[in-house]
Amino acid sequence: MTVRVGVIGTGMIGQDHIRRITQVLTGGVITAVNDVDEARAGQVAAGLPGAGQQRVSTHSSAAGLVADPNVDAVLIASWGAAHEEQVIAAVEAGKPVFCEKPLAPSSDACLRIMDAEMAAGRRLVQVGFMRRYDDGYRAMKQTLDDGGLGAPLLMHCAHRNPAAPPYGFTTEMIISDSSVHEIDIVRWLFGEEIVAATVLTPRRSGHAPDGVQDPLILVLEMASGALVDDELFVNAQYGYDVRGEVVCETGTVALADTSEVTVRTANQHGGRVPVDWRDRFIRAYDTELQDWLNAVAAGTATGPTSWDGYAAAAVTDAALAALQSGQRTAVTMPERPAFYAKEA
Amino acid sequence: MTVRVGVIGTGMIGQDHIRRITQVLTGGVITAVNDVDEARAGQVAAGLPGAGQQRVSTHSSAAGLVADPNVDAVLIASWGAAHEEQVIAAVEAGKPVFCEKPLAPSSDACLRIMDAEMAAGRRLVQVGFMRRYDDGYRAMKQTLDDGGLGAPLLMHCAHRNPAAPPYGFTTEMIISDSSVHEIDIVRWLFGEEIVAATVLTPRRSGHAPDGVQDPLILVLEMASGALVDDELFVNAQYGYDVRGEVVCETGTVALADTSEVTVRTANQHGGRVPVDWRDRFIRAYDTELQDWLNAVAAGTATGPTSWDGYAAAAVTDAALAALQSGQRTAVTMPERPAFYAKEA
Amino acid sequence: MTVRVGVIGTGMIGQDHIRRITQVLTGGVITAVNDVDEARAGQVAAGLPGAGQQRVSTHSSAAGLVADPNVDAVLIASWGAAHEEQVIAAVEAGKPVFCEKPLAPSSDACLRIMDAEMAAGRRLVQVGFMRRYDDGYRAMKQTLDDGGLGAPLLMHCAHRNPAAPPYGFTTEMIISDSSVHEIDIVRWLFGEEIVAATVLTPRRSGHAPDGVQDPLILVLEMASGALVDDELFVNAQYGYDVRGEVVCETGTVALADTSEVTVRTANQHGGRVPVDWRDRFIRAYDTELQDWLNAVAAGTATGPTSWDGYAAAAVTDAALAALQSGQRTAVTMPERPAFYAKEA
Amino acid sequence: MTVRVGVIGTGMIGQDHIRRITQVLTGGVITAVNDVDEARAGQVAAGLPGAGQQRVSTHSSAAGLVADPNVDAVLIASWGAAHEEQVIAAVEAGKPVFCEKPLAPSSDACLRIMDAEMAAGRRLVQVGFMRRYDDGYRAMKQTLDDGGLGAPLLMHCAHRNPAAPPYGFTTEMIISDSSVHEIDIVRWLFGEEIVAATVLTPRRSGHAPDGVQDPLILVLEMASGALVDDELFVNAQYGYDVRGEVVCETGTVALADTSEVTVRTANQHGGRVPVDWRDRFIRAYDTELQDWLNAVAAGTATGPTSWDGYAAAAVTDAALAALQSGQRTAVTMPERPAFYAKEA
Repeated sequence: MTVRVGVIGTGMIGQDHIRRITQVLTGGVITAVNDVDEARAGQVAAGLPGAGQQRVSTHSSAAGLVADPNVDAVLIASWGAAHEEQVIAAVEAGKPVFCEKPLAPSSDACLRIMDAEMAAGRRLVQVGFMRRYDDGYRAMKQTLDDGGLGAPLLMHCAHRNPAAPPYGFTTEMIISDSSVHEIDIVRWLFGEEIVAATVLTPRRSGHAPDGVQDPLILVLEMASGALVDDELFVNAQYGYDVRGEVVCETGTVALADTSEVTVRTANQHGGRVPVDWRDRFIRAYDTELQDWLNAVAAGTATGPTSWDGYAAAAVTDAALAALQSGQRTAVTMPERPAFYAKEA
Repeated sequence: MTVRVGVIGTGMIGQDHIRRITQVLTGGVITAVNDVDEARAGQVAAGLPGAGQQRVSTHSSAAGLVADPNVDAVLIASWGAAHEEQVIAAVEAGKPVFCEKPLAPSSDACLRIMDAEMAAGRRLVQVGFMRRYDDGYRAMKQTLDDGGLGAPLLMHCAHRNPAAPPYGFTTEMIISDSSVHEIDIVRWLFGEEIVAATVLTPRRSGHAPDGVQDPLILVLEMASGALVDDELFVNAQYGYDVRGEVVCETGTVALADTSEVTVRTANQHGGRVPVDWRDRFIRAYDTELQDWLNAVAAGTATGPTSWDGYAAAAVTDAALAALQSGQRTAVTMPERPAFYAKEA
Repeated sequence: MTVRVGVIGTGMIGQDHIRRITQVLTGGVITAVNDVDEARAGQVAAGLPGAGQQRVSTHSSAAGLVADPNVDAVLIASWGAAHEEQVIAAVEAGKPVFCEKPLAPSSDACLRIMDAEMAAGRRLVQVGFMRRYDDGYRAMKQTLDDGGLGAPLLMHCAHRNPAAPPYGFTTEMIISDSSVHEIDIVRWLFGEEIVAATVLTPRRSGHAPDGVQDPLILVLEMASGALVDDELFVNAQYGYDVRGEVVCETGTVALADTSEVTVRTANQHGGRVPVDWRDRFIRAYDTELQDWLNAVAAGTATGPTSWDGYAAAAVTDAALAALQSGQRTAVTMPERPAFYAKEA
Repeated sequence: MTVRVGVIGTGMIGQDHIRRITQVLTGGVITAVNDVDEARAGQVAAGLPGAGQQRVSTHSSAAGLVADPNVDAVLIASWGAAHEEQVIAAVEAGKPVFCEKPLAPSSDACLRIMDAEMAAGRRLVQVGFMRRYDDGYRAMKQTLDDGGLGAPLLMHCAHRNPAAPPYGFTTEMIISDSSVHEIDIVRWLFGEEIVAATVLTPRRSGHAPDGVQDPLILVLEMASGALVDDELFVNAQYGYDVRGEVVCETGTVALADTSEVTVRTANQHGGRVPVDWRDRFIRAYDTELQDWLNAVAAGTATGPTSWDGYAAAAVTDAALAALQSGQRTAVTMPERPAFYAKEA
């Protein structure tokens, strides 16, 4: 079965997912698009082959796209503020939905999405935390789950971007945009929730925009007591570099460098650091979305859930409060519903 | 356009390509199969979805499959001895053909394939030298082509398998089966032909089967005078390890290790060595075949040509003669036809 | 000139320094020893060649050794509690003194040593912070001082021992014995003082002795605002591993692995992790003590000063208070005396 | 006992050894010097402290230095052509002698030195093959001798210099000056003799001086049948890089990179390649000469013997013949005398 996908949001990320489904992955076809910029949606639709004899529909509303009988599943790559309504519409229509992160900008909105999904009676939502599909993180999790290194006790992380957008960027965005990926991945790696967050403020880089405190160190406490120190540095200049080392009772496991070749020249030997997130994680995006298409075709669900989207939002809330207060801040979360129980 | 692929040969490799086209890649569908073991072909066909309403046809002959109007393009994964007839049949039918290596077991047979293809008036054949699609070799070639390291002067290679098949394996098969990949990749990396081969015989491993000289060192001379020393060791025990370092006038470029994580335990730090060729090159196979499907859909041709298949066979002939004689042996090849001229 | 060295404390460390001066370094000779265990001191003396016709003297008191006219300089490797009196005796006698860390167990005692040295009118004390002589840390400092990476903003450190002593070990000893090396090295690398300390307590390893909180994370704030997160894990099981990465405005510099060879076997490639501090830092000890002998012979002083010993003690005090309180604790230190001004 | 050393040859290497004995090592003192340039010898002597009350003697002849009663042992760092006479003089005087490589420029001269030493009845000669004292090669040999990897079957080596001297350099000097170190180290690593040599000539670097064939590949056959391919590239531009990987029956062991730190900047991560032999091997020189001083003081002998010096010369002869003829050339050597039997 080929999954007929309707895409809400045809900006950069949306177009990239459309390219992926059309040119890279198997089992999916774009049948409908919608964007707040209707002209843009129309242009994107015009460039697509459609399914069989049928052209790609351009909808003037997200609700219209969700209701389209030629849409089996919905991919949401719109502005975060619009996610709640769009996800809930798809869920209420009983259609599987892939939603780019954040699931919703507030944890309350995420809870409402969960309520809708539980009311629908089956998992319909996959959240776009693509790092879970990265070969490096997967090998790290496999190593941890194998158990040969004993219990994980702490983790060192670093998330480095070459540069933040030159204007309109705030310190809070380091937490809400960058650390959200780290928050999800440590929950997944450790297989447990984050219970508190603290933000430390190192010396500020001269390359940070005026008024922005960069880098930050985010300290996360896991339910087991394990600690994560996470360097967030979005004006690191030298490249896009994501690092991680989990320290266990009898050993450690770390992400390896990703350069394909080693060059020796000019009294140096070494490899390449990725230039941006696309360079580093493009394969993870491919694997993630293929996994979604496969699950939709099979009538099942996979990957990060609404609960994961919610938990990331709740931890982000705590981290933002910790940034403001300078204090350790507990994460406030309800009990995890049985509906979202971990797989065996 | 979805390319309707007929597969000749439904053994391990053929089934793997069928899985790839069906479950991993985009733009292709299996519409017909053929195998000398007709029952096996039938079983494979029965497990496939087919295209639209149509089931997958099982043909009792390769010729029948080639002639099938529901077959746009042919993928050959049969026994090497059958390749010549099957490739030529497809070429004469004007259908694009992907042929697993070797293109044909003798260089004469390769020349006959070239003749047929030139008679057809356009490139129709892609040979399955998948290493050209490996990220490591691609980054290496990019580095060489960038020119920053000056002219390439020599290359050190190693091709190590954990173990050769326990019986029926001969020293000659190290040349014909293992080194053929190395032969193609150095031609591609250096962008020139191999003009002579010498085989050196180091101390024999106690793990080599009786009568098999393993490891070997194959020395290849390029048209420019550049030399390649290639360690071929098919009972290396410790893993599947493909290494390469090109030494240029002002620096070197080498394949990096491919482990995704670094583990520190028991007084060691380090990474994983692949267990087999699939573990090491699975992505290259995916990329290779997607490239073929894309080219077929676009009505173009890409990748290794019949000439590349021929050249590999001619160098293999020289290397086998060199193994027998213990002498440097010149490669005998006609002028490269303009038809197979390198792309600009 | 050959420096005639008197050694106070002939336990494991003292004997190792005696071996070093006698068998490895140039320009020094042992002429006198003292130990609270007089028999041990006598045995050590008996095994030494002495200087010229003269045998090595065994003194029943540290004061007697300091007063010995055949002693040009004093090396103190006794119990920490005895350091203050012994160092001050040497300083008052105008004799250069090398004192193993800690300079003294309390910061007050360190201040009294500083007073004595300032009264003597010239630098006479070198403290045994040998990491400053390690090739790795030296290359790191050189890279920082070169300035090509911009200002240092933060540092990630890890100090891992395979196992703490099986009995008598306390959590406080992780701070006082292990972190003191890290405290000194970051002061030296950054070229500035530490102004506050916080201790975080991750999940406890099952390999830690009863009642011991291991690992710890010590967070140090530098005067410039740079932050250091230092993992202290003394039951890490897998080896003796000291790691460090300084993150600067345009790049980072990290200690490299120290294995001399890379082994590929059993599906792994990798190197060796040191088994203990001796394995890791033996050369740093050699270089340190040679530097001391050279300075003594030249009538100058070099290396870590009494101020460095004091600063380490003051930061250790703050870290111990932070461990107890769970709070960020400011380091209390007077102004650095001009006498201990940094070299130009 | 302090060894009183007389140094013949006070050029760059000789002065470096004098500095080493005087300022770095223990147990040695320079008491006499000699050089064909008597003024230079006098200047060097004038800058040295001498032993006790006694100044350093300057001898107008090597024979005079050897006969000096204040000389216990002789260090020869003169021109290679003078070695034979000087070594034999020392041996006949019953004085231990350290001779820089080559032991003598011809293998016949080496045989005469061996005859003299055997006539003297005890080992007196240590040859300056300092790589045997390098931590990397030592760890490699230890790994091989441990036996965990099975029998060694082949080895890949590379010896790369940034640039050959701008004039007066010949292709032959690549063999006689550079490969001699490689020849000795593979004999030592494998614990057996080299029985044949072949020289392959890759594409010539545009940075090689006119008329010089650089790089070369020297293929060495060991008595066991193990093969060594050794890239010799003396105008490699990018640094001084010595590489080696021994391939055994169940794994390989390779020299690791020697950079002390890893730097991440400008989209690269990596380490430093040494700039010259001194940068790479300075510690090996220190260890080598300390080992010699210790042996002399103990009345024993250690390190590379006259037989090792002879064997290197005999293999060099074969390699030079192979370079000229383009053919595999057997090494001609007599039976190894029992006098030079390997240690148990």
